[in-house]
Amino acid sequence: MTDKIALTPKTHTTPPAKFSHGVKKGNILQVAGQVGFLPAEEGKPPTPAGPTLREQTLQTLANVQAVLEEGGATWDDAMMIRVYLTDTAHFAEFNETYDQYFAGLTEAPPARTTVYVGLPKRLLVEIDALAVLG
Amino acid sequence: MTDKIALTPKTHTTPPAKFSHGVKKGNILQVAGQVGFLPAEEGKPPTPAGPTLREQTLQTLANVQAVLEEGGATWDDAMMIRVYLTDTAHFAEFNETYDQYFAGLTEAPPARTTVYVGLPKRLLVEIDALAVLG
Amino acid sequence: MTDKIALTPKTHTTPPAKFSHGVKKGNILQVAGQVGFLPAEEGKPPTPAGPTLREQTLQTLANVQAVLEEGGATWDDAMMIRVYLTDTAHFAEFNETYDQYFAGLTEAPPARTTVYVGLPKRLLVEIDALAVLG
Repeated sequence: MTDKIALTPKTHTTPPAKFSHGVKKGNILQVAGQVGFLPAEEGKPPTPAGPTLREQTLQTLANVQAVLEEGGATWDDAMMIRVYLTDTAHFAEFNETYDQYFAGLTEAPPARTTVYVGLPKRLLVEIDALAVLG
Repeated sequence: MTDKIALTPKTHTTPPAKFSHGVKKGNILQVAGQVGFLPAEEGKPPTPAGPTLREQTLQTLANVQAVLEEGGATWDDAMMIRVYLTDTAHFAEFNETYDQYFAGLTEAPPARTTVYVGLPKRLLVEIDALAVLG
Repeated sequence: MTDKIALTPKTHTTPPAKFSHGVKKGNILQVAGQVGFLPAEEGKPPTPAGPTLREQTLQTLANVQAVLEEGGATWDDAMMIRVYLTDTAHFAEFNETYDQYFAGLTEAPPARTTVYVGLPKRLLVEIDALAVLG
């Protein structure tokens, strides 16, 4: 029996339902869909970084990274990154920010799927990740 | 060589193409996208529970659960739940139903990603899940 | 420590950002979202097969298959196929093509989720896959 543990970075806002920001079991680590919320502040509703796509993207990636690190993983362990954007016109700017963020990756970059969906108001991007440790 | 097996709950409607409702190989179990179809009835086309989002959501979750159980798993083994809704206005009601459904979870809740997409007519929600057994 | 390797079929177009067409680590293989681009030609921008949904779907599936094979896997190892279409009216034709493509599968067919999203201009379908080897 392998223990399954919830991964909850201290600065993350509370999820809006009964799910974990991340879970780890054995060598598998799954990060829930993260958005660009700034670190939680007592008594304040979750607030996205912004207003630019670039700022929101960087915060979203930082939020994913915090969950990976909470589970003892790094981006080098990430196998798959799922990107949800809201507008195909954002693709080029998103990729520019993404490439800058990952400029330092030394291992094989994770695979990625990018699709265009609806997201709650003010959110321009959502990202989740699957990692395999070890 | 680990055996890969298809998971096909007896009451499930036949998939509309050559895919399995679930597959298990080693300790990995993947549930296909489930919708709120009521148990199959001979000679009747697949019919979603309803008409409310709540009814359709509960049926969808029951359909995912049936696949997990067919593979000897429970929700406690679930690492990731992917939720596809059709309307951001459904988020609050969906979460309320979701939280009631999972009120009894004792392990770390699975991670989750929720996005808003198009679905075939009359379907308000689709859900799939990844589980790691053991 | 298990090695993580990038899977890059020779004929594939270069990804538009710092991600891999596929990665393999241990017995887990993840294929990035593939679209229906024809084999890359020096000095030509990526060009989708077409103009029909059928042609683009077959090319997309071939592109996924090339990544699986680059990692020493086959469709029989695939656990999950994620299908992104742009129009619910394409479902029947897509399934017909899908079923023909997979007519020869001998193992349990992979699970599948199909949703309707936005994709860049001229792309009608995107597909990714998770495989477990061994």
